Amino acid sequence: MNRLDQLATLLRFPSISAQKEHAQDVSDCADWLVDKLSGMGLEAAAHKTRLHPIVMARSPREEGKPTVLIYGHYDVQPVDPVELWESDPFEPEVRDGKIYARGATDNKGQLFAHILGVEELLRQNGGHLPVNVIFLLEGEEEVGSGSLSQFIKDHRDELACDVIVVSDTGMAAPDTPTFSYGLRGLAGAEIIVKGPSADLHSGVFGGAVANPIAALAEIITSFHDEDGRVAVRGFYDGVEPIATWERSMWATVPGMSNEELAKLTGVETVVTESGFTGAECIFARPTLEINGIGGGYQGEGSKTIIPSHAFAKISCRLVPGQQPEKIETLLEEHVKSHVPRGVTVEFKRGHGGNAYVCDPNSEFGLAAQQALEEAFGRKPVLVREGGSIPIIEEMKRVLGADALMLGMCLPDARIHSPNENFPVDLFSKGIDMSQILLRRLGQIKH
Amino acid sequence: MNRLDQLATLLRFPSISAQKEHAQDVSDCADWLVDKLSGMGLEAAAHKTRLHPIVMARSPREEGKPTVLIYGHYDVQPVDPVELWESDPFEPEVRDGKIYARGATDNKGQLFAHILGVEELLRQNGGHLPVNVIFLLEGEEEVGSGSLSQFIKDHRDELACDVIVVSDTGMAAPDTPTFSYGLRGLAGAEIIVKGPSADLHSGVFGGAVANPIAALAEIITSFHDEDGRVAVRGFYDGVEPIATWERSMWATVPGMSNEELAKLTGVETVVTESGFTGAECIFARPTLEINGIGGGYQGEGSKTIIPSHAFAKISCRLVPGQQPEKIETLLEEHVKSHVPRGVTVEFKRGHGGNAYVCDPNSEFGLAAQQALEEAFGRKPVLVREGGSIPIIEEMKRVLGADALMLGMCLPDARIHSPNENFPVDLFSKGIDMSQILLRRLGQIKH
Repeated sequence: MNRLDQLATLLRFPSISAQKEHAQDVSDCADWLVDKLSGMGLEAAAHKTRLHPIVMARSPREEGKPTVLIYGHYDVQPVDPVELWESDPFEPEVRDGKIYARGATDNKGQLFAHILGVEELLRQNGGHLPVNVIFLLEGEEEVGSGSLSQFIKDHRDELACDVIVVSDTGMAAPDTPTFSYGLRGLAGAEIIVKGPSADLHSGVFGGAVANPIAALAEIITSFHDEDGRVAVRGFYDGVEPIATWERSMWATVPGMSNEELAKLTGVETVVTESGFTGAECIFARPTLEINGIGGGYQGEGSKTIIPSHAFAKISCRLVPGQQPEKIETLLEEHVKSHVPRGVTVEFKRGHGGNAYVCDPNSEFGLAAQQALEEAFGRKPVLVREGGSIPIIEEMKRVLGADALMLGMCLPDARIHSPNENFPVDLFSKGIDMSQILLRRLGQIKH
Repeated sequence: MNRLDQLATLLRFPSISAQKEHAQDVSDCADWLVDKLSGMGLEAAAHKTRLHPIVMARSPREEGKPTVLIYGHYDVQPVDPVELWESDPFEPEVRDGKIYARGATDNKGQLFAHILGVEELLRQNGGHLPVNVIFLLEGEEEVGSGSLSQFIKDHRDELACDVIVVSDTGMAAPDTPTFSYGLRGLAGAEIIVKGPSADLHSGVFGGAVANPIAALAEIITSFHDEDGRVAVRGFYDGVEPIATWERSMWATVPGMSNEELAKLTGVETVVTESGFTGAECIFARPTLEINGIGGGYQGEGSKTIIPSHAFAKISCRLVPGQQPEKIETLLEEHVKSHVPRGVTVEFKRGHGGNAYVCDPNSEFGLAAQQALEEAFGRKPVLVREGGSIPIIEEMKRVLGADALMLGMCLPDARIHSPNENFPVDLFSKGIDMSQILLRRLGQIKH
């Protein structure tokens, strides 16, 4: 079977980790990966967890070679709204040079490029590799990597490695190889504002009772100052300034100018923290976002009530120097000290993760930059990722290895949305890049 | 059939005006009322409209007697959540001296007390009444009285009257006869804040794009100042001060102290416009309430997005001197001048109605006060209603007659909620009160 047909086979598994009815599909997908990796000569197994299996595979250990752990995930996001897909999300179709399917970019296409890269190296070198390889492929990334965290601690010796390779981040633009050396962290919370014991008639009681929605709006408004800075006391403690070389580099990243960001997102103008560009804010500044809000009557027409309660879901993206637990404590203190009269507030902490950053110019980092340049014929841009992959920071803490993030997710890959796709050409380049990278990493003195 | 059995028959019609599947039930209920009123010797008919019938009935006209129009509505609210009812909402059941059914208080119980009051007078006086009576009973009150507005204009001559009687307002407390001489008006709007063209990943874009929920919260927060006053320019123009006698009277209304209001609504403290009691704010001060809000992710757990849009439904209760159209214009101007950067705002006007107030000490008003005192054995309290019945103000404009609002809706009648009820004893007193009132009105020189 050719490479693309194999990828299509992998994409046909509806391995949606969030939906119970797909548990068997997730498991079948893990088994298929084990078969594939075993067939290449690796020692592979699917490890049971409380939810979905973790696939671990390793090449026969050769002394004197560095060990590279390649991380990826074979689970995918749900497909709703399925009616917006132009072809079946689990029946891959190539159109205009792109393969369309759920998981095409996130993350099956990218992880499979690494698998085929390793297979090609094994074929070329009589079953040997320039490095020792460990594949660590989880089935719960889209639902929070709940099992992997413990698995890494339980298998820290087997997973011991010199460096981690991940292709699950963004590529600034087509033909722009992108090396990510940082990730933002995450903190979250839910705020519930409670007023009267039941919804009240706004005529019978309006004027005498605090409105929970208005109270919640006041709290939300207190979160930012007029300069777009988060107004929570202590929020920026420990945040390091952006380096001069980073500001220079980021000013040149394709697609990341303020004008391009505005066009891409469909807004008239970007709105940033005062003194920073959009790219700087996304890559290296913390945020406090309101992800959702609800309260009172939301249906057709009107219903004249004072609602009994209202809620907002908030989350913060964090940068190095901030700790999720501390940020959640600061948020709670802020909210508790901004409760308007006549209502009470419940503050529910969410789940968090630390930010991550590594030196892009370490020996490993330079090897990654060179591999990208060789595979794509252009110097890579160096960015930090605005998103969060908390498990990367956990692996750093437990395994002591940094992660080289060589993402191939294009801005229009439509991950988590209908019509997810991955360019066939990029898939090929990814296979090449994986081989070049492993060869270069193999040359580093161990 | 005794009085209560007749009321039970009326309550058995599931005349839910908002639900298409009950259109025939609404119509059947109108026919039953026509039969009842015809049987009493009135000339009665159900008039077709674009939605639900309007029942009009009149006593044979006798010269020299004042004409009293008794208004009521025979349609009812939906019954959801039906599982919270202790007995079938359309199979009336008497428990602890109260009859439980949808519509028991609002408004079938109250309007039927007037019908039986008229029947009793006719019986006692050989088919004559102390006044000429017109019954005007609509089937669309719970859905906005859409047909009645035009009907009144089309039948202004037939509906010509000296005074209107309505029992569809509140009774401050059990055994506290309550005469309402005012109603608040209503203005409404929906605000839609639009940001990015689709929900965005809060990691990939967070920091560079204005958050529509935060923007909406800012707009909402701008609606009030720190004294609880509406901060919309011109909002209070034309609002008249509360009279000294009103402040004195309202300070004594049972159940309306700040402490009682807090207890009744389940809040720690009432929150009012600075300088006014809760009762004063409810009876005679305008408000701006947020009735509902929605945006972004509202489900279980979290979803880290910047939502594409957010909306809020707002409504104002108005007092004499304010016009709904003008208030909506002021609101729109306020919103348009408070749009945060990076978002756009759509402002949708709602439906409004004028406030209403009449002189409680007019000849008719004094007759009403006396009737209440005689029927209940206590002097009535004089209040304005915090709620709105826009059709009352329309009838005043078209027919030139004031409305005597003699409400029997108790604070725990649970109108619009599960387990709506009406005390059997209050039903009897209502029948008495109707007779006394019509006799007293008949004594007024015409």
